[in-house]
Amino acid sequence: MMIESFLERATPTWMGVEDDYSDIVISTRIRLARNLDGYRFPLAFTENEALQVEQAVTHAIKDSTKLQENYSYFAIKDLTPLQRQILVEKHLISPQLAKKELVGSILLSDDESTSIMVNEEDHLRIQCMTASFQLQKAYEQANKIDRILEKALPFAFRDTFGYLTSCPTNIGTGLRASVMMHLPALTLTGQMNQIINAMTRLGMTVRGIYGEGSENLGNVYQVSNQITLGKTEDDILADIQSVAEKIIQKERHARGKLMEKAELALEDRVYRALGTLTHARILTSEEAATCLSNIRLGVDLQLIEGIKAMTLNECVVSMQPGFLQNYAGDVLPPAERDRVRAEMLREALFRENMSKPIIGGKGEDSFDV
Amino acid sequence: MMIESFLERATPTWMGVEDDYSDIVISTRIRLARNLDGYRFPLAFTENEALQVEQAVTHAIKDSTKLQENYSYFAIKDLTPLQRQILVEKHLISPQLAKKELVGSILLSDDESTSIMVNEEDHLRIQCMTASFQLQKAYEQANKIDRILEKALPFAFRDTFGYLTSCPTNIGTGLRASVMMHLPALTLTGQMNQIINAMTRLGMTVRGIYGEGSENLGNVYQVSNQITLGKTEDDILADIQSVAEKIIQKERHARGKLMEKAELALEDRVYRALGTLTHARILTSEEAATCLSNIRLGVDLQLIEGIKAMTLNECVVSMQPGFLQNYAGDVLPPAERDRVRAEMLREALFRENMSKPIIGGKGEDSFDV
Repeated sequence: MMIESFLERATPTWMGVEDDYSDIVISTRIRLARNLDGYRFPLAFTENEALQVEQAVTHAIKDSTKLQENYSYFAIKDLTPLQRQILVEKHLISPQLAKKELVGSILLSDDESTSIMVNEEDHLRIQCMTASFQLQKAYEQANKIDRILEKALPFAFRDTFGYLTSCPTNIGTGLRASVMMHLPALTLTGQMNQIINAMTRLGMTVRGIYGEGSENLGNVYQVSNQITLGKTEDDILADIQSVAEKIIQKERHARGKLMEKAELALEDRVYRALGTLTHARILTSEEAATCLSNIRLGVDLQLIEGIKAMTLNECVVSMQPGFLQNYAGDVLPPAERDRVRAEMLREALFRENMSKPIIGGKGEDSFDV
Repeated sequence: MMIESFLERATPTWMGVEDDYSDIVISTRIRLARNLDGYRFPLAFTENEALQVEQAVTHAIKDSTKLQENYSYFAIKDLTPLQRQILVEKHLISPQLAKKELVGSILLSDDESTSIMVNEEDHLRIQCMTASFQLQKAYEQANKIDRILEKALPFAFRDTFGYLTSCPTNIGTGLRASVMMHLPALTLTGQMNQIINAMTRLGMTVRGIYGEGSENLGNVYQVSNQITLGKTEDDILADIQSVAEKIIQKERHARGKLMEKAELALEDRVYRALGTLTHARILTSEEAATCLSNIRLGVDLQLIEGIKAMTLNECVVSMQPGFLQNYAGDVLPPAERDRVRAEMLREALFRENMSKPIIGGKGEDSFDV
């Protein structure tokens, strides 16, 4: 597939799943870090070594008869800064990989559920994503690819340590399991700090979806294991499963309490967010994310009808700078992005819900960016 | 007419005038303070004196063949606290008169353009209002009533001082001319303090419409003369006319500059206000007034179409606590008022502009308070 195909869709098809968890869990991700014996880690290797690693990996994937999905290969250096940014915004590549100037490439499955980063921090990063809370399904897919590649490639593995990785925090299983959760009620009731501290003591991390900081753009948090060594893959998955379930329970409880004690205030918050997104002419990512989070909460609590969760997911992705600029077909300075973001979100929510904008006026009837 | 007739309408018929000033000037008011010779001022008089004053005034009005309008008489003590509050909110009586427990009454013309307060701070306060900027018209009406009553009643007048009044600040002409103006652009650009200071030096006052403070609920200010002594009525009117015209010019200039330099930011402000009023479930008077002011500015600058200035005028009056409670048919605690206010404003703006709310949901389809 052409790179454009991966850039034009805000959300992949695998996102469209609704189950018992999809009011809280947005997606689940498994990542396996692997390296090849005989080559230095990307931090220290030569361009020639990088090339050899890349050729070995791409051949292994191309030659495999057992991989059912079709994979598309892209060298990062061949992508424009905007294209790289969009792949980061879709969580298909890491910000670190996007910065590579010489080495680094990506193999993407057609449905975007699997991406294999080559020569990022490690020689290989196998990443599998599912909608909602499906740790086992995501792990099975990652494990299958891992098993296939392990037969073709000399993975660096020591009996005492397990899989060797560039950063010691990934050594052992090389496994990171992450659950992306929407936790507005826990955030609103000020319980997140306590949860983040408790998670840290359990060897887990909770952080915002973008960046390394704990900023929680749109009340979305990523819960993942910190420890990769001294535990089996099954133990790690079981721990994350149990911890994520507890957080889900807590969020449900907090939502229930809010509905019980402050339904009107909650309804006010939810509808104000809708009023802002359907009317504002200038919107920063931060404000838009907060509004989308509030509307999502309103949809989940059935305070608002007629807006699909999928539309909100699409908005969350497509309101990001790279996506917006791709959409506008032009590089936009930040102020202009805020204008286009407001236009795009207004359009998306009006299209969802009604044939005409609430009150006619300048710039309402057409949507030209 | 029954008191209910005066309470159910948010805006009187005389408000529905649109002219070259009505984008900025909401209304014009003339007030004449008069007292009767032979009776002490209300501050010091006996209940018996109060009764005699009242009888003299009401008879003078009833007996006059020259007053074309029909006047309804109400004793303040016969009105409920809620009824008094609504009359204050409509600017038909002063907050001081509303507090009277024994004496004090009001004579209201059917169209509400004229109200004569009896035994407030002075024995008589003749108040005439017009829409927009019509100082001369309002003065002529007040003057006509003054001339008629002067023939029937022994007005306290001394050649050296002019009309005697309870408070020295009203002595002389007893005339206060006030122009109520919507000055959002001057407020937004931080020019109001400078204007208020300059006005004070010219013997004028600029203040918010409610209360004595300079708080500017909804960016509405009342410009009026401070000096009543040592100038003729014509001079006072000419001064106010000239000063108000300068402020109107400044506001127009500030609006033009805003449109030129920050149209998008202005459009954003205006539409966000509309989004808030059409979606919020809880609204304080302050926030509602600010939003109505922003929408009004948007209508005046043609950034929003389809909303009538009259609807906004009605909203400004009917969102006040007394009016809201009359509307709800019940005494409401403040928190409940904020809920009913949000419901009422949503309803008013939806009714104005569309057959159905933007996004269906709880409490949107019916309006029961």
